[in-house]
Amino acid sequence: MTNGQMYKWGDKRSSIRELYEYGKARAAELGADSVFDFSLGNPCVPAPDGVTDALVRLIKETDGVTLHGYTSAQGDYTVRHRVAQNLNDRFGGDFTADNIYMTCGAAAGLAIAMRALCEEGDEIILLAPHFPEYEIFVKAAGGKPVTVKFDVDFQIDFDALGACVTPRTKAVIVNSPNNPSGVVYSRDTICRLAAALKGYEKRFDHPIYVVSDEPYRELVYGSALPTFIPSVYAETIICYSFSKSLSLAGERIGYIAVNPSGTCAQEIYTAILGAGRALGYVCAPSLFQRLIAECLDKAPDISAYAQNKDLLYDALVKMGYECVHPDGAFYLFVKAPDGDAGKMSLKAREYGLLIVPGDDFAAKGWVRVAYCVERATIMRALPAFEDLLKGYGDIARK
Amino acid sequence: MTNGQMYKWGDKRSSIRELYEYGKARAAELGADSVFDFSLGNPCVPAPDGVTDALVRLIKETDGVTLHGYTSAQGDYTVRHRVAQNLNDRFGGDFTADNIYMTCGAAAGLAIAMRALCEEGDEIILLAPHFPEYEIFVKAAGGKPVTVKFDVDFQIDFDALGACVTPRTKAVIVNSPNNPSGVVYSRDTICRLAAALKGYEKRFDHPIYVVSDEPYRELVYGSALPTFIPSVYAETIICYSFSKSLSLAGERIGYIAVNPSGTCAQEIYTAILGAGRALGYVCAPSLFQRLIAECLDKAPDISAYAQNKDLLYDALVKMGYECVHPDGAFYLFVKAPDGDAGKMSLKAREYGLLIVPGDDFAAKGWVRVAYCVERATIMRALPAFEDLLKGYGDIARK
Repeated sequence: MTNGQMYKWGDKRSSIRELYEYGKARAAELGADSVFDFSLGNPCVPAPDGVTDALVRLIKETDGVTLHGYTSAQGDYTVRHRVAQNLNDRFGGDFTADNIYMTCGAAAGLAIAMRALCEEGDEIILLAPHFPEYEIFVKAAGGKPVTVKFDVDFQIDFDALGACVTPRTKAVIVNSPNNPSGVVYSRDTICRLAAALKGYEKRFDHPIYVVSDEPYRELVYGSALPTFIPSVYAETIICYSFSKSLSLAGERIGYIAVNPSGTCAQEIYTAILGAGRALGYVCAPSLFQRLIAECLDKAPDISAYAQNKDLLYDALVKMGYECVHPDGAFYLFVKAPDGDAGKMSLKAREYGLLIVPGDDFAAKGWVRVAYCVERATIMRALPAFEDLLKGYGDIARK
Repeated sequence: MTNGQMYKWGDKRSSIRELYEYGKARAAELGADSVFDFSLGNPCVPAPDGVTDALVRLIKETDGVTLHGYTSAQGDYTVRHRVAQNLNDRFGGDFTADNIYMTCGAAAGLAIAMRALCEEGDEIILLAPHFPEYEIFVKAAGGKPVTVKFDVDFQIDFDALGACVTPRTKAVIVNSPNNPSGVVYSRDTICRLAAALKGYEKRFDHPIYVVSDEPYRELVYGSALPTFIPSVYAETIICYSFSKSLSLAGERIGYIAVNPSGTCAQEIYTAILGAGRALGYVCAPSLFQRLIAECLDKAPDISAYAQNKDLLYDALVKMGYECVHPDGAFYLFVKAPDGDAGKMSLKAREYGLLIVPGDDFAAKGWVRVAYCVERATIMRALPAFEDLLKGYGDIARK
């Protein structure tokens, strides 16, 4: 008596969410100290200085009827104007308020963008490893997800990409810094991607969009920001979220930015307005729209994540785990010693470790460890990681 | 290069939103005083006493990492528990936390519920007059909207309903107090609806759900609350919003409550979880989840709306307009003197009056006047209403 697909997606929750719920139940049962929850990308660093003050000031100094009232469906004009200005100032774009659509976070942005772009059967290329919900957003929009495997260093495998492009290819979802691998695509990778897509556009005589999912844009450990894709590829739609950069993951605030130099920018923006309506998004939360407009220049304090990364990466590599070195986000990708990530995640539970099997990320044999936790949690968890590895015996030492 | 249907829904905005945007542009051009904006159901009454204080207290006294972090997809457990308790205390339900799914307002609740219930081609009955977006939510979910006309006093026309029910009927959307008519369904109407649906269930051998859209539940001008539908019909799914009761329309906070005594309650809840995922809803805004849990017993001060209603209804009736007497919500439904609501809305613009033609509400020949505005706006607008009617000449006096 319900939609069969929706029932299935509700019944088999994402392995991340399932582990998170399991962890909450275990912590309630055994005490928080006996669970090392590395399941969820929930920021552990407070919002940057001044964000809370700005929030209180907005509430106290703005007329409540206006502050908490509806904004335009695409978002408050001033907010959108400032977001556009900020993108132009930082990255040299040509965005205006009318290219910006405020959303309930990047997930909403992606669901809306997929619905706006896809006709039934259109193909959307996902670059492994990728966030599992991408598949759901694509399928829910009537599209067909096509996954391209990664190359040895977790950059894009361009041969595999070439083999997957067809006349029905509508878009490629790019996520750098990457969840779950923590890898940042090099400028060379982005430029090669742009060149390849331009070739396919010519061959198939229609645009192929890049939908760039950028919640981790500000969370990089090197000196340079990730390459700003619109600067090298015009047909780009950005889905951004302030979840990680301002530690507002639960507040659901972000935006879609449609690059105005794309050939169909106005058409896409209009379809996004329609898709937002269709999915029940009336407007992005109004208080948080205003808040982020005040906080666009605030940088997150990523030193805690950087320290966690060094601590965890160094310790796990020393123990003998094979890990991908992360340049951004707050995830460490670890290879299952016997190649069975599902088994590793289950075994890890016995030691109180909650780590997500990578099979759902289209990366069989790897697990994701979200290190956006207290440093003390990592310290206490290290012996458990050691015991877990020992449990593999000789396999781990070969 | 985009989805054709989404483009259309984005290009032809709802007439409400279109008027609202027109009004903002006109006000910027000519000054706010020359536009009487009755287009949008944006509360003009501040949040009840204590809501702002509770908001500031939450921000100052709760750890920000927890306060602004992800909650479970269905919402924070304590929040859901309190919502369930509040429903049980007030209406004698049997809800538990696990029947409550927190949403980004009632629109999100409806879009999610439709997606959870509908298989391609399932029919959803809409009772005219109705909020125009219902059609979009149903179509976006692959369903087929079937509109039942209203009877003379804007209650349900049961003969018309009977003629519309088929083996594919999945649900009926009920909205009382009603947007746009302001009518509250009598207890008799709700009981007749329950009896009729039970008959159709038996005939077709499957449940037929009531999806009750209740953003105006607390906005009634008589002494009694509207009939709580789960108390007379088990197969009920409530979509609630705090937009109007706590004047938080832009913050997008509400819930779906699946009546646990319905035959498929658990299955529906699971499908709702799936549909929420599919549409990109990660969780309802976390700060506002916590806020409403603190404010469930706060009643809106509806005296301003009541006074507006009396002022506007009495004045317009005295002028010679035919109006539906509103018992709830903050809308007055007014008959176009010559039966052409679209023309009336356009003519009204010449006098600075922004009123929404009812054609989109499946009520041809009526316009909606949203009186959730300053009393002074109504006072200043009355001569414009008078001039508008005079413009109809003899037609208005026949």
